[in-house]
Amino acid sequence: MPRKSFLKPTLTLAGLLSLFALYSLFHTPTPNPNPNTGTIHLEENKKVNIYMYDLPRRFTYGVIESYAAARGGQAVSKDELLKYPGHQHSAEWYLFSDLNRPNEERVDSAVTRVMDPEDAELYYVPFFSSLSLVVNPIRPAVNASSDKPTSVYSDDQTQEALMDWLEEQVFWKRNNGRDHVFICQDPNALYKVIDRVKNGVLLVSDFGRLARNQASLVKDVILPYSHRINTYKGDIGIVNRKSLLFFMGNRYRKEGGKIRDLLFQVLENERDVIIKHGAQSRESRRMATQGMHSSRFCLHPAGDTPSACRLFDALVSLCVPVIVSDSIELPFEDVIDYRKISIFVDSSTAIKPGKLVKLLRGVSSERILEFQKELKKVKRYFEYEDPNGTVKEIWRQVSMKLPLIKLMSNRDKRMVLRDLTEPDCSCLCSNQTGVHTIL
Amino acid sequence: MPRKSFLKPTLTLAGLLSLFALYSLFHTPTPNPNPNTGTIHLEENKKVNIYMYDLPRRFTYGVIESYAAARGGQAVSKDELLKYPGHQHSAEWYLFSDLNRPNEERVDSAVTRVMDPEDAELYYVPFFSSLSLVVNPIRPAVNASSDKPTSVYSDDQTQEALMDWLEEQVFWKRNNGRDHVFICQDPNALYKVIDRVKNGVLLVSDFGRLARNQASLVKDVILPYSHRINTYKGDIGIVNRKSLLFFMGNRYRKEGGKIRDLLFQVLENERDVIIKHGAQSRESRRMATQGMHSSRFCLHPAGDTPSACRLFDALVSLCVPVIVSDSIELPFEDVIDYRKISIFVDSSTAIKPGKLVKLLRGVSSERILEFQKELKKVKRYFEYEDPNGTVKEIWRQVSMKLPLIKLMSNRDKRMVLRDLTEPDCSCLCSNQTGVHTIL
Repeated sequence: MPRKSFLKPTLTLAGLLSLFALYSLFHTPTPNPNPNTGTIHLEENKKVNIYMYDLPRRFTYGVIESYAAARGGQAVSKDELLKYPGHQHSAEWYLFSDLNRPNEERVDSAVTRVMDPEDAELYYVPFFSSLSLVVNPIRPAVNASSDKPTSVYSDDQTQEALMDWLEEQVFWKRNNGRDHVFICQDPNALYKVIDRVKNGVLLVSDFGRLARNQASLVKDVILPYSHRINTYKGDIGIVNRKSLLFFMGNRYRKEGGKIRDLLFQVLENERDVIIKHGAQSRESRRMATQGMHSSRFCLHPAGDTPSACRLFDALVSLCVPVIVSDSIELPFEDVIDYRKISIFVDSSTAIKPGKLVKLLRGVSSERILEFQKELKKVKRYFEYEDPNGTVKEIWRQVSMKLPLIKLMSNRDKRMVLRDLTEPDCSCLCSNQTGVHTIL
Repeated sequence: MPRKSFLKPTLTLAGLLSLFALYSLFHTPTPNPNPNTGTIHLEENKKVNIYMYDLPRRFTYGVIESYAAARGGQAVSKDELLKYPGHQHSAEWYLFSDLNRPNEERVDSAVTRVMDPEDAELYYVPFFSSLSLVVNPIRPAVNASSDKPTSVYSDDQTQEALMDWLEEQVFWKRNNGRDHVFICQDPNALYKVIDRVKNGVLLVSDFGRLARNQASLVKDVILPYSHRINTYKGDIGIVNRKSLLFFMGNRYRKEGGKIRDLLFQVLENERDVIIKHGAQSRESRRMATQGMHSSRFCLHPAGDTPSACRLFDALVSLCVPVIVSDSIELPFEDVIDYRKISIFVDSSTAIKPGKLVKLLRGVSSERILEFQKELKKVKRYFEYEDPNGTVKEIWRQVSMKLPLIKLMSNRDKRMVLRDLTEPDCSCLCSNQTGVHTIL
């Protein structure tokens, strides 16, 4: 179980403290439902106004600069010349860049950027939290001229400084951050301040390191990783996909990722199965590309957290993912039925000797082609560069959070003091009965 | 605390039972996100397709007929001649009637009725559950000719029969009822089968009798009661509102409603305060109308459950509600900021001698006029008969549930067996820190 309980009794309300809640008529920030300015239907269809904070430079371009400097990069004269380094958590760069485009180029987006925060319904905080985490290379670079390490960057301090700055902002205080959107795609991004941002909409890869009172499917949005290998440009087909199953990645991982070693044991001597231990490198990416483009199925075991970029590499390779990660959350699951594009196997079944390959060999060619056909249909959702792709869908997902944000913000402000024995939460629970009947 | 805990460990998953989840590619019921049929933006703005079950007659017109028969009414030749009896839980009639109107007359609605269930995204079950509860009068009518009681109607049996019928329907089974919409506005409506309908979207008055695993703000919709006294047609103003505070209703209630007797004690001898014990009757409604139309504030204490129709009577009377009901949930709170139209007082403050009237006397005339002005703006949300009113807003609220319904339905079906130590729930929690700072 990767998630921590959220029912720690965090409420210590002083029993009958009486609070008189005659709320101010003025200073009410939420939009006024005015019946004279059009129908509800028109209101519903309008785009959501989003304000992007003009953060101090250290939280955006400054992070890129520090990253470059720690690797011996030269200073550049303009921020526009700084190049965000490509990696699997690049969504923070794509979203920032997207909102920096003129609104005229963003007509299809579910959100409109507004320059006056008074006009906004949501507030985007474009801190590069995932890049910040890896600014310091594992082995610090040394400055050639002085021999002193140049990496004085501190991710922890940057996170704290961001929150110190944000918590002073009037729009942050207004709804305690509920209408603020943060991106923290790396499972460790923002970890130091996660309890200060948890009211907001978090854009994450999964909930592996987040407790239930910090993140949820109701409040947050699951993002795809940026795929790291090239999209397969060919058509559907199995003739050029000689191997049955492909996996390349780290054999040894922590927590849920311990399954990997067990999978290696049952798979490594199977015919038509390519399973290789390998770390991230340009060469391993080249090999992975070749493997994924020439295999019918691609294994996606849990890593340190339930999700990994490999899944999205497989999807854009038209290599049907075989997901062995019991607690995985998947992006955009309201519009994507992942049963049509992937195979799910629970961990205890997958590690039974011979079981997994036997199952995969039993899948007919027609069936594989059907999977590939569906993969082609939804591939755009995993392409950050596609104008009709990931970025657009992320904003649509974010915009759909607005009604519950408004409801909860209004409700919080009029709620009187109560004797609560447990947190006041509204939940949507998984339907357990469905699990046993599927084969 | 009116709500029961939802964390009873309902999961008894047999530890390592291995389930092999190779899901069928075929028989996948959820809509296919087809990238070739338009942009995401267009998809987002389209109306939600809703199918209304053509239920066996006993669950709709049959309930009205039984109600009339139990009161000595004569049989009628056509269902259209049956008159649904007016009462505070009439929403079930308004929604049924609305969906029976031609779609051409419903252009502004967020939902389009479809006649083929295959085309639907949501399924409405138009059982008159609140009327069913009161079919039998407290003292049964006797049939004049036979002297035998005619009331053989059983609400319990009708509820069970409904579910026996529904659970056989293919569209019910498809998503375990998640995409089904039920109306159960009376706190006791559907109580016998509530655990069989709890996956669906419930249209309710509050959560007073519902456990946290049965209903929530995330999954369900809070409806206003139909107001029982006439709308105040005049303009804003306080000249004709001589009394400070008005209340008429049952002094003695159960549970949270015990506060009523305490409020009577501190209020009944106050100058300018009209507080009267009275049961529902035509005469008392006349007196309540007069009282609410000529008072500046109208008291809304909790009853057996946190909400009551009196609140909506006050709202349409332009009489500023004084809400003393700590666990109340309010309709359409994403678009209505109730702090602009009402005053909230926590129970322990309200019952302190002299406190409540002192507070209300301190509210300036300008402030009362502001409240009234805002009341006028949002009044339409509480008018079931207004074409731009309650019914339209209920459908909008229902339509906004669809993305999470689709997400959870897709997710349920691909979820493999896991070792869960607690229910798999996604929650949105109230921001407790806000409560202490408001005065």
